[in-house]
Amino acid sequence: MDTDIKSLNLHAALRGKLSVETKTPIESFDDLSLVYTPGVAEVCREIARNPAAVNGLTIKSDTVAVVTNGTAVLGLGNIGTAAALPVMEGKCALFKRFGGLNAFPVCVDTRDVNEFVEIVKKIAVPFAGINLEDIAAPECFEIERRLIEELDIPVFHDDQHGTAIVVLAALINAMKVTGKEMETARIAVLGAGAAGTAIAKLLHFYGAGDVTVCDRRGIIYAGRKDIMPGSYKHELALLSGCKVEGSVADALKGADVFIGVSGPGLVTKEMIAGMNKDAIVFAMANPVPEIMPGEAEAAGAMVTGTGRSDMKNQINNVLAFPGVFMGVVEALRERSDDGPKVGKVFIDERVKTAAAEALAALVDNPSPDRIVPGVFDPGVAAAVALAVKSTIR
Amino acid sequence: MDTDIKSLNLHAALRGKLSVETKTPIESFDDLSLVYTPGVAEVCREIARNPAAVNGLTIKSDTVAVVTNGTAVLGLGNIGTAAALPVMEGKCALFKRFGGLNAFPVCVDTRDVNEFVEIVKKIAVPFAGINLEDIAAPECFEIERRLIEELDIPVFHDDQHGTAIVVLAALINAMKVTGKEMETARIAVLGAGAAGTAIAKLLHFYGAGDVTVCDRRGIIYAGRKDIMPGSYKHELALLSGCKVEGSVADALKGADVFIGVSGPGLVTKEMIAGMNKDAIVFAMANPVPEIMPGEAEAAGAMVTGTGRSDMKNQINNVLAFPGVFMGVVEALRERSDDGPKVGKVFIDERVKTAAAEALAALVDNPSPDRIVPGVFDPGVAAAVALAVKSTIR
Repeated sequence: MDTDIKSLNLHAALRGKLSVETKTPIESFDDLSLVYTPGVAEVCREIARNPAAVNGLTIKSDTVAVVTNGTAVLGLGNIGTAAALPVMEGKCALFKRFGGLNAFPVCVDTRDVNEFVEIVKKIAVPFAGINLEDIAAPECFEIERRLIEELDIPVFHDDQHGTAIVVLAALINAMKVTGKEMETARIAVLGAGAAGTAIAKLLHFYGAGDVTVCDRRGIIYAGRKDIMPGSYKHELALLSGCKVEGSVADALKGADVFIGVSGPGLVTKEMIAGMNKDAIVFAMANPVPEIMPGEAEAAGAMVTGTGRSDMKNQINNVLAFPGVFMGVVEALRERSDDGPKVGKVFIDERVKTAAAEALAALVDNPSPDRIVPGVFDPGVAAAVALAVKSTIR
Repeated sequence: MDTDIKSLNLHAALRGKLSVETKTPIESFDDLSLVYTPGVAEVCREIARNPAAVNGLTIKSDTVAVVTNGTAVLGLGNIGTAAALPVMEGKCALFKRFGGLNAFPVCVDTRDVNEFVEIVKKIAVPFAGINLEDIAAPECFEIERRLIEELDIPVFHDDQHGTAIVVLAALINAMKVTGKEMETARIAVLGAGAAGTAIAKLLHFYGAGDVTVCDRRGIIYAGRKDIMPGSYKHELALLSGCKVEGSVADALKGADVFIGVSGPGLVTKEMIAGMNKDAIVFAMANPVPEIMPGEAEAAGAMVTGTGRSDMKNQINNVLAFPGVFMGVVEALRERSDDGPKVGKVFIDERVKTAAAEALAALVDNPSPDRIVPGVFDPGVAAAVALAVKSTIR
């Protein structure tokens, strides 16, 4: 509550968390003639002659669009683009603080997938990449797929892939701590929205042999009556190791790993007690986890993590997205410096995996108390960026 | 040429002229919890409850969108949105330097008027106002009209109205210097694009009794074969004091005022010599005027002005637009601080006139050498802002 009031007061005092600044002084007619007319005309002509030059001569070199339609904002749901703006500004602030990148909020006021895609395509010019933010499932999947296909700049839905990268990093280290193996561990994911879907897919790509995804109705499997062929849940069902009906509790029975991206208090001590020994429990519902780490440990969990900054092992997107985009921008810059042709860059499963491994490697001796770096640890974004850049090239 | 190369080098070194900065430090988990989750959720909820609160709690309080479709960029024509970006960034830089406002480039990649309007409407949430920039006539007129009607934030096409405000200011003082009167002076405008149209309309609104507008084919009058009823040129013809066929030279014969927003060298010494005595000649084609001021003065002109920074009496938009938007933002802020309801703000002819009079009043004793303030004179934007704010309220 106190945080709520403090935050409201801070926002009222700031009247916006971002400012746009000029990188070069404008104190004389000479300055004016270089920054604006007549000198700027030559820069325009250069880009008209050589379209790729826009990457080196403008803000397109290092500016990220933080794009939302306001349909799935934090835990608040479909509150619209205006009410979403404080979150988008916050995200842009994090891009600057942790990635050194410029980022600007783009609020696209439509719920129509096709219209959203067409608008983003037509306003993409000033941006090096697109960070999709707080867009509801399942629309987020089609929006992302189409923008990746149709735009020539990288597109990254952070709620999906930022989360998946950090979860994979945490799991790599948690498995070292517990002696479990990715190939054989039984992994149960609760939450089949944007985050749960991306986590399941990235773990699968990384070689996880037994991933079961649940929504609140229970295990997602191909024969479930409410799951249509062709839907994204059907895709999850096909990917899953589990082919039988069951509740969330059934999915957790004997599982080695629980990954929660769902809602507060959905997991009980009894469910944790029924897991395999030395269980790994990531209860990431925000701000109230599926089960509190202390309770999970009392019920037998060996390694726990949450999304909260006031607890150990914070599994937070901010460990990933600034470095991912830094890496992308650096890769584009090196290509652009090599010559005029800049190929299309994809932040694919290989790139995400490299980012996760780099994050995991930042923890020297993983222990139950430390499986991921801290948000404010120096060098996190740089390490992720290096991995991303090397994998893209 | 030297300026061209210097500008290109500066742009290559800067890789974009704008940066997005965070107004408040993020150095601790407490900072994070206020700027981002969980604290930001309360700010979102406040806006969801009270939509007008977005004006005080976000960048919408003082951020201007500089919006283009890249169809009429400087003197370069329809070079597209990517090649236009350096100009848009420059404009944003001027908004910061002279108006203290945040501004961000919005490149809308379409030539279709309806699509342009729909896109701008759907991405307008983060902005206090829209500055339209470098959009070709006649599309610019319909785009502006529709956006003013359909958006709830102010919309201002600077190529039209910024120019018109500064020309009116210059003319008010030039008339004092020459002893001419707005009501009776014969005024010839050369150039019937965005700027010429807006100048003619604002002068007419201000009481100018005899305004003739020419394009390169000559005088625009209602019977001219290529001018269709309902077109914007037809509207100019109706507004004009001149009803007869004629060349540009004919329009200038006996005229008291020449206002050029056309192309280089279109006016001769002979044409100036044919004007009324103590003529006023604003030759604002950029970078090469319709006639050089020295030549015009040799041919009898008493007061001259251009768009160039290396000559006296620079009639430059930058004298107007930063103050206009400052005034708008301040008016909106005072209303918003008075209560939750924020009425729609129009930058109409009254507001533009007030801005021009404020600009003119900044010159203490107008003389042939000084009819407008200098671009770097302190207090210019503040004076314009005060006039705009008082007129809006």
